[in-house]
Amino acid sequence: MDCTVSALQKARMAYAPKLPAAFKAGANVACTEGEKLAAFADTEKITAKFPSTSNMPLLTFAPGNGEKIAKPVNVAVILSGGQAPGGHNVIAGLFDGLKSLHPESKLYGFKGGPSGLTDNKYIEITADFLASYRNTGGFDMIGSGRTKLETTEQFEKAEANCKALGITAIVIIGGDDSNTNACLLAEYYKAKNAGIIVVGCPKTIDGDLKNAYIETSFGFDTASKVYSELIGNIERDANSAKKYWHFIKLMGRSASHIALECGLRTHANVTLISEEVEAKKMATDEVVTILADSIAKRAANGDNFGVALIPEGLIEFIPDFKSLIAELNDLLAKEGEAYAALASNDEKASFIASRLSASSAAVFATLPMEIKMQLTMDRDPHGNVQVSRIETEKLLVELVKNKLAAWKKEGRYNGKFSTQTHFFGYEGRCSMPSNFDADYCYSLGYNASSIISTGKTGYMSSVRNLTEPAEKWIAGAIPLTAMMNMERRHGEDKPVIRKALVELDGAPFRELAKNREKWAVETCYVYPGPIQFFGPAEVADITTMTLALEKGK
Amino acid sequence: MDCTVSALQKARMAYAPKLPAAFKAGANVACTEGEKLAAFADTEKITAKFPSTSNMPLLTFAPGNGEKIAKPVNVAVILSGGQAPGGHNVIAGLFDGLKSLHPESKLYGFKGGPSGLTDNKYIEITADFLASYRNTGGFDMIGSGRTKLETTEQFEKAEANCKALGITAIVIIGGDDSNTNACLLAEYYKAKNAGIIVVGCPKTIDGDLKNAYIETSFGFDTASKVYSELIGNIERDANSAKKYWHFIKLMGRSASHIALECGLRTHANVTLISEEVEAKKMATDEVVTILADSIAKRAANGDNFGVALIPEGLIEFIPDFKSLIAELNDLLAKEGEAYAALASNDEKASFIASRLSASSAAVFATLPMEIKMQLTMDRDPHGNVQVSRIETEKLLVELVKNKLAAWKKEGRYNGKFSTQTHFFGYEGRCSMPSNFDADYCYSLGYNASSIISTGKTGYMSSVRNLTEPAEKWIAGAIPLTAMMNMERRHGEDKPVIRKALVELDGAPFRELAKNREKWAVETCYVYPGPIQFFGPAEVADITTMTLALEKGK
Repeated sequence: MDCTVSALQKARMAYAPKLPAAFKAGANVACTEGEKLAAFADTEKITAKFPSTSNMPLLTFAPGNGEKIAKPVNVAVILSGGQAPGGHNVIAGLFDGLKSLHPESKLYGFKGGPSGLTDNKYIEITADFLASYRNTGGFDMIGSGRTKLETTEQFEKAEANCKALGITAIVIIGGDDSNTNACLLAEYYKAKNAGIIVVGCPKTIDGDLKNAYIETSFGFDTASKVYSELIGNIERDANSAKKYWHFIKLMGRSASHIALECGLRTHANVTLISEEVEAKKMATDEVVTILADSIAKRAANGDNFGVALIPEGLIEFIPDFKSLIAELNDLLAKEGEAYAALASNDEKASFIASRLSASSAAVFATLPMEIKMQLTMDRDPHGNVQVSRIETEKLLVELVKNKLAAWKKEGRYNGKFSTQTHFFGYEGRCSMPSNFDADYCYSLGYNASSIISTGKTGYMSSVRNLTEPAEKWIAGAIPLTAMMNMERRHGEDKPVIRKALVELDGAPFRELAKNREKWAVETCYVYPGPIQFFGPAEVADITTMTLALEKGK
Repeated sequence: MDCTVSALQKARMAYAPKLPAAFKAGANVACTEGEKLAAFADTEKITAKFPSTSNMPLLTFAPGNGEKIAKPVNVAVILSGGQAPGGHNVIAGLFDGLKSLHPESKLYGFKGGPSGLTDNKYIEITADFLASYRNTGGFDMIGSGRTKLETTEQFEKAEANCKALGITAIVIIGGDDSNTNACLLAEYYKAKNAGIIVVGCPKTIDGDLKNAYIETSFGFDTASKVYSELIGNIERDANSAKKYWHFIKLMGRSASHIALECGLRTHANVTLISEEVEAKKMATDEVVTILADSIAKRAANGDNFGVALIPEGLIEFIPDFKSLIAELNDLLAKEGEAYAALASNDEKASFIASRLSASSAAVFATLPMEIKMQLTMDRDPHGNVQVSRIETEKLLVELVKNKLAAWKKEGRYNGKFSTQTHFFGYEGRCSMPSNFDADYCYSLGYNASSIISTGKTGYMSSVRNLTEPAEKWIAGAIPLTAMMNMERRHGEDKPVIRKALVELDGAPFRELAKNREKWAVETCYVYPGPIQFFGPAEVADITTMTLALEKGK
């Protein structure tokens, strides 16, 4: 690399991540087996699917005696799925942990995600190579990919490739799906006595891989802080210019943890939570009314500005909108040709409207023409509406505009509604990891090497007690099967790690619910500012409000 | 305010901005008069327009003897135009400077920009009130506005309002237009002996208010660092996912300093500079070719991803596009009704195309239908095309797509072109000011109080030598008239402060030009990371590359 690096990059390379006390004599820890953990639901079915890796004990680590292990160990690591800040530090921690177990241990990075493992694309990770990636964002060190490891053929190929390099352990860094597949792989290898351990690490900025033993997935802290910085900056701009409502869409297709965390941090006027919309079976019009209400109340106080946070997946959680999409998919599959033959947009819209159920037609009628055409013309290769392509933030602006116009006629609203829309996603996935994520990821990786040293397979690296200083973090391992249940996927019952959605009776959501009426009307913005790597601990080292609230802090 | 503040906000309130050595005994400085400065161009005309405030000497300040001035002084301050990080610190510096001159001095903040001065809307700024705004972003302390102070009636109203409060000086914090008006106001008051001093402070994130004596406007440092953080994060994401080209539009209607600074900081693959496009009279197709070239060359190396930076005002600098807009404005003024009566988009597009000149019709033909309709249907109250509403980043994506499709047929290109578009503007205007902007703004305000203490009017607060540590900064004042020339505005010759555009023979642009062929093809990204307020000086205190290069560093 002949390219220069920024001053901050240089400074961060020298950062020494903090580790839990368990590792003070290296990764060769003292391991205590705790209670055996069955799957939290569908226990019998999970046990049947995973006879070799179910009902295994919780592991907890304490400092070892500082001795090396007898023989070096060769390990494979892959990154799987979307980027999250700190991935490189998991690898750095794993590398340093393996070297502390035995200095001749080797770490191989398989490239481009799971497919690297089956296609045998790899590099050996050396200390020199690793140096420039320590404490950096991105997954560019070895790349990532979305191939799913789930077939016997893939498992066999991976095994052969590992055997050729003397690899006896695979560390998979990924989200719920990738760790589900890690569990399948672990079971397969253990059942056939392949001599290859599989360990998972919890990654995802969305924050939806967590449970009783995994307090948070890595990357959520950093990404939500980057978005909160930007939201705070925009709030301050809104409050200075007093001219615009900013509708901000935030990453999070399935879970709204990011929107919730950002809302709690910044006191945005409105924070929509997909899980609430679904649970309360809100109609599209109800969602629009929540926004219009805040706008109208603030306008009555002379404040024609504000900030609203919208989770990326929102419209897929609105029952009437979901039904509309389903009907459109059916309708266009049957009558797509007749539809396509129509000349004008108006004709097309009428054609559709006349063929929908009354309730779907009502929703369709409220949509601006641009969205009507997007929904019906811009379809994927299977002919389905491309829901993820819908610019929800712009759609909501249009729907709110219509509602406010109606309220104006009724005398219920008398303000100005000028808008700016934003989508924050790519800005946060590869940010330099915060001190928390740098420490947490390094600890997860180091901890994975300890799991490997115990010879146990089918575990997820677990570092807990995260609202305390790193020294007090608890290192250990949780059986992957303990996080699984059965879910319907593509018409089949499958064992999967359950996605952790926002819980409406959880402390973070309750905190939002308690404050939101006030925040909707008043200007109570909090400006978090950019992530700090230096300076006072309360500025540089504290993790998310979500975790603090979940832990009752 | 019963709202909570973030940990970083709290920490920043305690930050003590650094001051030049001239102020070590307070704002009552020793003042040296230097050479008399005439307008840098159109000298005679400027002298004729500003008989009382032309050809005044440069002022330089050195430490005073620490004595107070004889009588307290009452001062007005206004914020004018768009937000820039650090505005609150100018006010804080001014306040502290005035108190150091005489503890009974008073500072009045006129609210909502220049109109506050004429409508007599003000608050007295007290130490308590000010405390929570120190080192914060935004203009929410007293608000801002875009009213232009230029009529005698306005000047008289402002005078009466000032007199009523015993105000003998007005500090105007604004960009080139606001400081042009500050100069008119200074001349008017001096000519009639009104006893009111006017002082300007150079503000704008765009960085286009600078000259031989003003090294940079405040806010440019912070805003360009916020955008560079985000661009770096997106580069790292692009380089990890290896899937998308990101087209990023950046604020800067007139000048491309922000795009240039961000390009230099992050080594984006393509950085377009409006001033170059205009100077070289590039056709739309040439601009598109620059982008397509980089994309095709990278694709040949297997890299189907990249980052391109696009200044907000770009299309207004492309001669053939500018001509097209002018023709559309004429055409729709004459035949708008006939056009509006047409039913389909195709008919509309043909109607327009048949009535354009050959060269404009050729440009129009390359545009996607959506942009054609936006250009011809979405017009302002005067019937003109709303150029600022055009999503240039999306337009360029479409045009590049077409070009790449043509190249694919010719066998010149064989890659994938998937895109994401972004617009960064509101994210940076109200960010917490960097240490540099916090120090610079505080110094500019403190310095303004020193100018007031000399009794001189018609000056801009000038703090120079900014690439050195703050202690070595040179404090002083520059006659506003020295920055003026005559320009054609709305059919009239008017005296205005010249906007500083990117100079193609300047060091910053030459640095880009020297590297851009390499950056266009290779992946040489630099990741600046978030603004740091603590930590090593090379991370936390250094200002822009633009300034360093201009100063030959």
